[in-house]
Amino acid sequence: MAIGTSSIDFAKRLDATADDTEALLTRLLSDDLLPDETARPPRLMAAMRYSSLGGGKRLRPFLVVESAAVFGVTREAALLVGAALECIHCYSLIHDDLPAMDNSDLRRGRPTLHKAYDDATAILAGDALLTLAFDIITRDEIHRDPMVRLLLTRALARASGIGGMAGGQILDLAGEGRFGDREPVDVARLQQMKTGALLRFGCVAGAILGQSSPEQYKALENYGRALGEAFQIADDLLDVEGDAEALGKPAGADAALGKTTFVTQLGIDGAKQRIADLLARADQALSMFGAKGDVLRAAAHFVAARKN
Amino acid sequence: MAIGTSSIDFAKRLDATADDTEALLTRLLSDDLLPDETARPPRLMAAMRYSSLGGGKRLRPFLVVESAAVFGVTREAALLVGAALECIHCYSLIHDDLPAMDNSDLRRGRPTLHKAYDDATAILAGDALLTLAFDIITRDEIHRDPMVRLLLTRALARASGIGGMAGGQILDLAGEGRFGDREPVDVARLQQMKTGALLRFGCVAGAILGQSSPEQYKALENYGRALGEAFQIADDLLDVEGDAEALGKPAGADAALGKTTFVTQLGIDGAKQRIADLLARADQALSMFGAKGDVLRAAAHFVAARKN
Repeated sequence: MAIGTSSIDFAKRLDATADDTEALLTRLLSDDLLPDETARPPRLMAAMRYSSLGGGKRLRPFLVVESAAVFGVTREAALLVGAALECIHCYSLIHDDLPAMDNSDLRRGRPTLHKAYDDATAILAGDALLTLAFDIITRDEIHRDPMVRLLLTRALARASGIGGMAGGQILDLAGEGRFGDREPVDVARLQQMKTGALLRFGCVAGAILGQSSPEQYKALENYGRALGEAFQIADDLLDVEGDAEALGKPAGADAALGKTTFVTQLGIDGAKQRIADLLARADQALSMFGAKGDVLRAAAHFVAARKN
Repeated sequence: MAIGTSSIDFAKRLDATADDTEALLTRLLSDDLLPDETARPPRLMAAMRYSSLGGGKRLRPFLVVESAAVFGVTREAALLVGAALECIHCYSLIHDDLPAMDNSDLRRGRPTLHKAYDDATAILAGDALLTLAFDIITRDEIHRDPMVRLLLTRALARASGIGGMAGGQILDLAGEGRFGDREPVDVARLQQMKTGALLRFGCVAGAILGQSSPEQYKALENYGRALGEAFQIADDLLDVEGDAEALGKPAGADAALGKTTFVTQLGIDGAKQRIADLLARADQALSMFGAKGDVLRAAAHFVAARKN
C-alpha cells in the first residue's frame, strides 16, 4: 500500500505537534488566574505540571490536529482540543499509578507523581486535570459555533467516563482479580474502553471540528477504532518483547499480574497478524479522504510499530 | 426582616427538589447505555449509586432550581443542572474521604465508599461521577441555545477546579500540615474555594439559565457568596456544638486536627455575629428580585441555622 508521507516527514510533524502541545499546556497551566478563580495553589499547579509537561509523544493531540487538518480546521483550534484530551490522558495515568490502583513507581523514566509528591496531591492533581479539560474544551477560540464545542465536550465526557476510559479501568482491575475472583475479560471490549475511547475521540474530534458529513465522521471513527486496537496490541507485544529502558517502565508487568491480553489470547504471531489486519482496515477507512488521509495512515503504521 | 416563605413551605419545597433530584439521578445512573458507550460496568455503577443516591438534603440542586425559578426557567432544565452539580459534590465527598485524604470511615451515618467497597473503586467512582457531570450539563433539554449550556459547562469546571473546589481542598490539607509545616490559612478564601465555589455556582446557574442581565447575575453571585460563607461558618459551629448522631459523622474533627476554622478565628460569638451579617448581606443582594427572591432568602436562613 502506498503511504504518501515519508517516515522523516511524519516524525517531524509528530514532533512539531508535541512541541506546540507542550507550549500550549505550559500556558494553560500557568499561574495566571482565569475569571472565577481566586487562587491557583502553587503545590497543586506544580503537581499538575509535573505530570503533564515535559514528556510523551502527544499522540492524542496529534490525532486531533491531523484529523482536523483533513477538513482544513485551524491548527490553533485543534491544538486546544488536543490539550484538553491530553489533560484527560495525564489525569488517568496519575490515578492509574496510585498505590490503590496499579501501584507504579515509574512513569516515563521518572518517579510517578505520588512518589514525587504524595497520594493526596496526586489524587487532587488528577481531579484538577480532569476538570481543567472541560474548561479548555469550552474555549471560544475552538469554534465560533457553540454547538460544535458542546458536541466536543459531550464526546470527551463519554470517551472518559463510565462507558469509556473509567469503565475500562475497572474492568481491567476486575480481570486481575482485584475485587475477589478474577472476572472473565473480553480483551477487545476492555481496550476499546480503557485506551481506545480516548484515541477514538482524538480521531473523531477533527470531524466534529470540521462539521463533517456523517459518512466522514463514521470513517474517522472506524479508523480510530482500528488504530486504537492496533495501539493496544502493540502495547501488549512490547510488554512481552520490549525492553524496560525504551519503555521507561518495567517490561513483563502484564505477565507478572497474570493478565489476559491480546498476546495471551492470540499468541505473538496471531497478535502480529491482527495488527496487519487492523492497519488494512485503517487504510480502508481513510480511502475516502484520498491524499488528505496520508498522515493519519502513517499514524496508524507508526502506532503499530512503536518501540515505547 | 420579612420572610415571605414559611418554614413549613420551605421544608416542603426543599424535600420536593430532593425527591426529584433523587429520581433524576437514579435515571442518569441507570444501566441504560448512552451513545458512544459499549458497557456500563456493574461494579462501577453500583459504587456511583451508593455515593450519590439515598441521601443528603440536595441543597445545591435546590439552589439551582430556586435561582432558576426567579427567571421562570423550567424545572426540568434546572433539575438537570442540579444533578450535574450534585455529581460533582458527591465525587468530592468520595475522594475527600479516602485514606490518603481525610481518611473518614463514616458519611451520612453509613460506611464511606472506600470502606463499603475498596480504594480503587472509590477513586474510579469519583472520577466517573466528575466526568458524568460534564456529560449531563451538555444535555439538549437544558436549554435550546447551546451557548447557555456552554457557559454552564465552563462555570461548573471553574467552580470545581484549580481555582475552586480542588484548589480549596489542597489549601485545606496544607493548613493541616499534611505537606510539611502547617501552612498559614486564609479561612475566608479557602472556604470560598473549597465549599463556596459549588454553592455559588448553584446560585448563578439560575442566572445563566435565565439569560439574566449582568446586574442580576452579580446579585445572585453576591447572594451565593454570602450563603456559602454562612454555610461554612454554620459547619464550623456544628463541629464544635453539634452532636454526632444528627451529623452522621463524629463531631470535633476539626479541633482534633488543630484546624484553623471560622470559629477558631472569630470565636463562637464572633462566628454567630458574622452569620447574622452575612444573612443581611444575602437579603440585600436579593432585594432587586422582590417577592421572587423569598425562597432564596429563606434558603440562606435555613443554611445558617441547620443542625446537620
